Amino acid sequence: MTFGTIGAAQENKRDAKFAREILRVMDAQVAAWNAGNIQGFMDGYWKSEKLVFVSGETVTKGWQPTIDRYKKKYDSRAKMGTLAFSDLEVNVLSKDAAAVLGSWALARAQDNPKGKFTLLFRRFKDGWKIVHDHTS
Amino acid sequence: MTFGTIGAAQENKRDAKFAREILRVMDAQVAAWNAGNIQGFMDGYWKSEKLVFVSGETVTKGWQPTIDRYKKKYDSRAKMGTLAFSDLEVNVLSKDAAAVLGSWALARAQDNPKGKFTLLFRRFKDGWKIVHDHTS
Repeated sequence: MTFGTIGAAQENKRDAKFAREILRVMDAQVAAWNAGNIQGFMDGYWKSEKLVFVSGETVTKGWQPTIDRYKKKYDSRAKMGTLAFSDLEVNVLSKDAAAVLGSWALARAQDNPKGKFTLLFRRFKDGWKIVHDHTS
Repeated sequence: MTFGTIGAAQENKRDAKFAREILRVMDAQVAAWNAGNIQGFMDGYWKSEKLVFVSGETVTKGWQPTIDRYKKKYDSRAKMGTLAFSDLEVNVLSKDAAAVLGSWALARAQDNPKGKFTLLFRRFKDGWKIVHDHTS
C-alpha cells in the first residue's frame, strides 16, 4: 500500500462523512417544510446576499429575496403540500464544497409538481449550507 | 498586513486566473457551436461516463449520451442557430473546482430559445472541463 492509497482511503472516509452531514441538512429541510415551516426550510441556505437561487428562467439573489419568493409562492399549507427528495447523489469537491443532484416532488391535493435540482453546498463554521440552487 | 491578508490576495489572484481559463473554455465552446461543430463544443465537457447533464426534468449521464442528445436535438445547422452566453459569474470553490452561473440564448430563424445554466467545472491535467451542467 502506498501513501497515495492511504490518502485516497482517508479522503473517501472524509467524503462519506461530509455526504452524511449534507443529507442531514436536507432531511431537516424536508422535515421543516412538511411542518409548514418555511423559515426552518430556509435554514439549509446560506444566509447571505450572495445566495444564488435559479428556478427555470428566474435568478433570485440573496437569502431574503429567496425566502420572500418561497413565502409568496407557497402562501398556504395546501400549496406547500408534502415535500420529498429522492435520487440524491452527493459529489464532494473539496474540504468545504460539494454538489448534490436530486429530484424533488410535492404531493398536493390538486397536483403533484416535480423536478430536478442541483445544489452547491459550502461548509461554514455552523455546518453545510446551500450557496447555489438550480431547480428545474 | 497579516499573513492572512497576503493569503487572501494570492487566492484572489489565483481565482481571477482560473476564471479567465474557464471563460476561455466557454468562448471556445461558443465558437465551435457557431461553426456547426458539436464535437468541438463537447470538448468543454468531461469525457467521462460520470458527466452529469440536467436539462429541465431530464438527467443524462455520461459524455457519449450527452453528445448523442445534442446531435439528435440539433440535427441541422438551422436548428443550432447562433449561440451566445451572457451574465457569466464564475465562483471558484477550490484549487480544482468552480461553479458558473449564466444565461444562454440561441438566435434562430424561427425562434429564440433562451435560459439559465449552472455549470460545475473541475480542473484536470488538460484543463478545466464541465463535469455537471444544469440547464433550464
